Amino acid sequence: MHHSVAILGASGYTGAELVRLIADHPTMRIAAMSADRKAGLSMAEVFPHLRHLDLPMLCRIEDIYFSGIDLVFCALPHATSQAVIRDLPAGVRVVDLSADFRLRDPAEYQKWYGKPHDAPDLQAEAVYGLTEFYRDQIRSARLVAGTGCNAATGQYALRPLIAAGVIDLDEIIIDLKAAVSGAGRSLKENLLHAELSEGYNAYAVGGTHRHLGEFDQEFSAIAGRPVRVQFTPHLIPANRGILATVYVRGDAARVHETLATAYAAEPFLSVLPFGQTPSTHHVRGSNHVHIGVTGDRIPGRAIAVAVLDNLTKGSSGQALQNANLMLGVEETAGLTMAPLFP
Amino acid sequence: MHHSVAILGASGYTGAELVRLIADHPTMRIAAMSADRKAGLSMAEVFPHLRHLDLPMLCRIEDIYFSGIDLVFCALPHATSQAVIRDLPAGVRVVDLSADFRLRDPAEYQKWYGKPHDAPDLQAEAVYGLTEFYRDQIRSARLVAGTGCNAATGQYALRPLIAAGVIDLDEIIIDLKAAVSGAGRSLKENLLHAELSEGYNAYAVGGTHRHLGEFDQEFSAIAGRPVRVQFTPHLIPANRGILATVYVRGDAARVHETLATAYAAEPFLSVLPFGQTPSTHHVRGSNHVHIGVTGDRIPGRAIAVAVLDNLTKGSSGQALQNANLMLGVEETAGLTMAPLFP
Amino acid sequence: MHHSVAILGASGYTGAELVRLIADHPTMRIAAMSADRKAGLSMAEVFPHLRHLDLPMLCRIEDIYFSGIDLVFCALPHATSQAVIRDLPAGVRVVDLSADFRLRDPAEYQKWYGKPHDAPDLQAEAVYGLTEFYRDQIRSARLVAGTGCNAATGQYALRPLIAAGVIDLDEIIIDLKAAVSGAGRSLKENLLHAELSEGYNAYAVGGTHRHLGEFDQEFSAIAGRPVRVQFTPHLIPANRGILATVYVRGDAARVHETLATAYAAEPFLSVLPFGQTPSTHHVRGSNHVHIGVTGDRIPGRAIAVAVLDNLTKGSSGQALQNANLMLGVEETAGLTMAPLFP
Amino acid sequence: MHHSVAILGASGYTGAELVRLIADHPTMRIAAMSADRKAGLSMAEVFPHLRHLDLPMLCRIEDIYFSGIDLVFCALPHATSQAVIRDLPAGVRVVDLSADFRLRDPAEYQKWYGKPHDAPDLQAEAVYGLTEFYRDQIRSARLVAGTGCNAATGQYALRPLIAAGVIDLDEIIIDLKAAVSGAGRSLKENLLHAELSEGYNAYAVGGTHRHLGEFDQEFSAIAGRPVRVQFTPHLIPANRGILATVYVRGDAARVHETLATAYAAEPFLSVLPFGQTPSTHHVRGSNHVHIGVTGDRIPGRAIAVAVLDNLTKGSSGQALQNANLMLGVEETAGLTMAPLFP
Repeated sequence: MHHSVAILGASGYTGAELVRLIADHPTMRIAAMSADRKAGLSMAEVFPHLRHLDLPMLCRIEDIYFSGIDLVFCALPHATSQAVIRDLPAGVRVVDLSADFRLRDPAEYQKWYGKPHDAPDLQAEAVYGLTEFYRDQIRSARLVAGTGCNAATGQYALRPLIAAGVIDLDEIIIDLKAAVSGAGRSLKENLLHAELSEGYNAYAVGGTHRHLGEFDQEFSAIAGRPVRVQFTPHLIPANRGILATVYVRGDAARVHETLATAYAAEPFLSVLPFGQTPSTHHVRGSNHVHIGVTGDRIPGRAIAVAVLDNLTKGSSGQALQNANLMLGVEETAGLTMAPLFP
Repeated sequence: MHHSVAILGASGYTGAELVRLIADHPTMRIAAMSADRKAGLSMAEVFPHLRHLDLPMLCRIEDIYFSGIDLVFCALPHATSQAVIRDLPAGVRVVDLSADFRLRDPAEYQKWYGKPHDAPDLQAEAVYGLTEFYRDQIRSARLVAGTGCNAATGQYALRPLIAAGVIDLDEIIIDLKAAVSGAGRSLKENLLHAELSEGYNAYAVGGTHRHLGEFDQEFSAIAGRPVRVQFTPHLIPANRGILATVYVRGDAARVHETLATAYAAEPFLSVLPFGQTPSTHHVRGSNHVHIGVTGDRIPGRAIAVAVLDNLTKGSSGQALQNANLMLGVEETAGLTMAPLFP
Repeated sequence: MHHSVAILGASGYTGAELVRLIADHPTMRIAAMSADRKAGLSMAEVFPHLRHLDLPMLCRIEDIYFSGIDLVFCALPHATSQAVIRDLPAGVRVVDLSADFRLRDPAEYQKWYGKPHDAPDLQAEAVYGLTEFYRDQIRSARLVAGTGCNAATGQYALRPLIAAGVIDLDEIIIDLKAAVSGAGRSLKENLLHAELSEGYNAYAVGGTHRHLGEFDQEFSAIAGRPVRVQFTPHLIPANRGILATVYVRGDAARVHETLATAYAAEPFLSVLPFGQTPSTHHVRGSNHVHIGVTGDRIPGRAIAVAVLDNLTKGSSGQALQNANLMLGVEETAGLTMAPLFP
Repeated sequence: MHHSVAILGASGYTGAELVRLIADHPTMRIAAMSADRKAGLSMAEVFPHLRHLDLPMLCRIEDIYFSGIDLVFCALPHATSQAVIRDLPAGVRVVDLSADFRLRDPAEYQKWYGKPHDAPDLQAEAVYGLTEFYRDQIRSARLVAGTGCNAATGQYALRPLIAAGVIDLDEIIIDLKAAVSGAGRSLKENLLHAELSEGYNAYAVGGTHRHLGEFDQEFSAIAGRPVRVQFTPHLIPANRGILATVYVRGDAARVHETLATAYAAEPFLSVLPFGQTPSTHHVRGSNHVHIGVTGDRIPGRAIAVAVLDNLTKGSSGQALQNANLMLGVEETAGLTMAPLFP
């Protein structure tokens, strides 16, 4: 059995990461890859680390013949994706890695992204791609919306706690530390090695980061009432990794037990023994999430720390895991590689 | 006018940083440097970046003739310092960079450091070395206790707020990100380049970091009642820098104004315009502290972010600033270098 | 079909890398892992990035029952390996990752390693493990000696050139840049993040690095007369990767053609188009070697640049490739993962 | 005594480095700073690490009133500088940090930079700014041409050797490792943190790097006959530092002695004891050059390794040192800071 897939927007980091993962996938074959500004180039010219693979040349989207394609990964930039996906042939199933279909409410989309949505029908139909919590819908979905990488990390630490009612919903702080590849391959001064390495800073402080839209949507849906968290991301001099330090009010042992129980059967989610803390070092290049819980010296407070690789579990690995579900393949196919350390 | 100083424990990072700073000091001359295990070596052999300086050979403490020494910097390890300082000639003035004299209460010392203090009389006499808040006592002190580098960073963000009563004292969270040189030159597996670079993690989660002793002591003294903060440090793959993200409850504009007013005349403390956030990149190698304040989207909450260089303002720069006060020298002498960027 | 393997010395970086690779191997199962000082611990305690794998506990070598073991990977430190391997049951096949069996001549071993060999009989029997050049002997070997990681890199650039007689044998310079994991997990001051990151240096300058013993042995054997190269390694602030810049005298086009022809059928060796240069970024975490050749502006001189990942192709990946040959498995089994970038 | 200086092109790294150094200069004051695209901004907005300094606003060059300016530092991009400097008022003395006036021969300029020079008269008049070798001409020069940072590093290792005739002029190889800030603040994909960190590569292989023009000009002038070296630069994941590994033919002891003698009185050039090797770590942020010499195991060959900080001694520090000579100030003024380590 083989599955033909196309990757739209293959010249960015999430596109390259998809190729890396699919290269070892038992049934998937890459039939087409688009990159508008680099159409006509080989992938080896754009990403020399993939030069050993037998891949189609980069092309323009309009040159892809979708009729034999089982599934499309759309790794295009935010705002570009919605129109492209809207115009795909009706039967094509899509895993989108952009932000375009994460928010179900058109008003919320407009609020966080500053413009009306171009494909509101699809927006309503899209399934939120946090695999472990939307498995059934993903299996039958036509369009799955990949989550924000920061949003995924925070949710892994918090969803079971909100669902179980073991924490105070008005006292949640997510202090998050993100590596630089999450910003993509864009040419910005603050992403230069000379500007970024050897130092770090907070950004989007005070509740302005767009991934808050996802937190609001998901946490409120679980709780059945509005939930508003505090969220402060920081940019760290590393290439891969997200670490979310989550401050909650509740009994630390119950917090730990709730997470451990919720994830006991999950292939990629590990809850460490109580009191241990995870490190981004130990998930790099893999689809694994490590979560640790510790009680604070102040009774009734706990700290949960979750880590994942933003390009893998936070983006392309998640996308592949969802595609596996959609295609009826083993959910972990192509995702079993161990983390790279050191 | 010249001042003769000695550096005890010159083979560690804080010792080397003292030498770097004093090398450009207008009145200070290094008369002696000790490093027990490296006695007999030149500083160039231990720290080749200082090879151009004309420095005394490293010696043992007992080989230092203290009678001509105006001031001693003690950069020895924690627990070692207290006995050494106790046994120095009575007239010698001392700036200690260890943790040994930071806590005034013997019970607190025992609680956080796990053993009784060897010099309780000196402990009672020592002045806490957070320069901007203890200037007068420092000028006349015989013994000044350098603060913890993390403790200094958090206090710069919080002391004026606690003193002014503009924040809720029971709802303070300090999420701190520290570079690796704060751990010193010790040979530990987690400090190896291969283990540390490209990843990061929390440590001492839940209220077990010793610098909490300083927060407790100082914040409670200011408030006139017990104050207990939450404090989570993280280890970041960079060599210098501390960034404290401090979550408080109070009016953000008042928080900003309180800090800006408190530090308006300070040579090394800059409060950024409201809503801007600082970066460790911009204080590296300098004695400067940058502080930013932003309001959260949740009314009544604010985030203050403070950054400094742990080896300079967080340790050796602070020590030199205090020594300048003790010796009646211009407070900023030897400390005016601009940060190194990139 | 399953193959049972044991890993001796599993608590070092090459041991952990073996586990990472074998985890995705189609036929190999890890039956035992030793780590004397960490016997009794789980691998997750020593290398948390491997916590998701179902692995045997770390044990002492004497607790391993070798009768059911098809092959042993020996990742012990230099000098320790020889006695351990000597004392293994006679029928056990071994891939050694240490330096102990690389040099066939006892005098050369003594010269470079400063002591007589403990197992001279095995030394004579061991096959040098540079896979592409010793395939037939490796298939039937009882003991394969993994090459030095630097030695492998230089040889990939030079062996076909020496064999074809297209370069001047007396004018070869290998200027090599090595990442830090090649030094292992040992606690040395110069391997600390604070000492290593943001700077670099040459070491073992002038012909004192032990991998010269391998260059001398192999190049002289190919040429049929003594060949002595110049070799200067440098330590670079990165965790994985070796880049060898090799200066040769000869016609650049012939140099390129000779390498391209020699490696045309090799699964892991890629010769880039003439004039292109490789980067360690593009082989990280993989078993691939990229080689580029450029002509100098001075006629008759060429520069060949070879890159590989020291822990994978330079050590554990090579070991697994050799083990595959010995066990009659597909040579590339467990080694097909693409490089990790960024 | 005060000297008024202007900095043209203050928004790049060399401009910022000039400001850092001049901030501690005893007589120099910055009267004007230009940055065409950022005119109207404060330096703190462009380089927040300089926010504590009292500096003029960034302006356009045409808004600078040059009559009170004693000296102009021109830190504009290559090719832009020549026309700007040509049009400055005749009496203004200039230290140029660009490549525009390094080559004295118009044909060589055209060869390496691909276009005719816009100010050939000035080109003929400009003094090559390698301070230690052109001091007398620099003192009285109207225009000093800052050297290439790579070119400076190689020359420090080689000039005395060529002058003394102790090495073979036809067998010189410079294998150079450069940190990223030498590429400036330009937005290029390969300079992004995600692309550069954790890996390294050669570039401009085979004799195409423009700094070869300087090597050719200077070495040939010293030797009195054409000298052509091999030169291969590499890009290393660090922000500051250049290390040149120079392979020469000659007696190693004489090579060492020649360099040690030549630089014995130099304030910024240190030759290490024979057999020791320098590191870029130990010159970072300083104006110092460290040079080590080792003999190879092949008789008659030696390796010299030179390190410096590309932004300081390789560019802005050199510029300030030259400006000091031109203004009759102490040559080391503003340049005495010790390196920053770690």
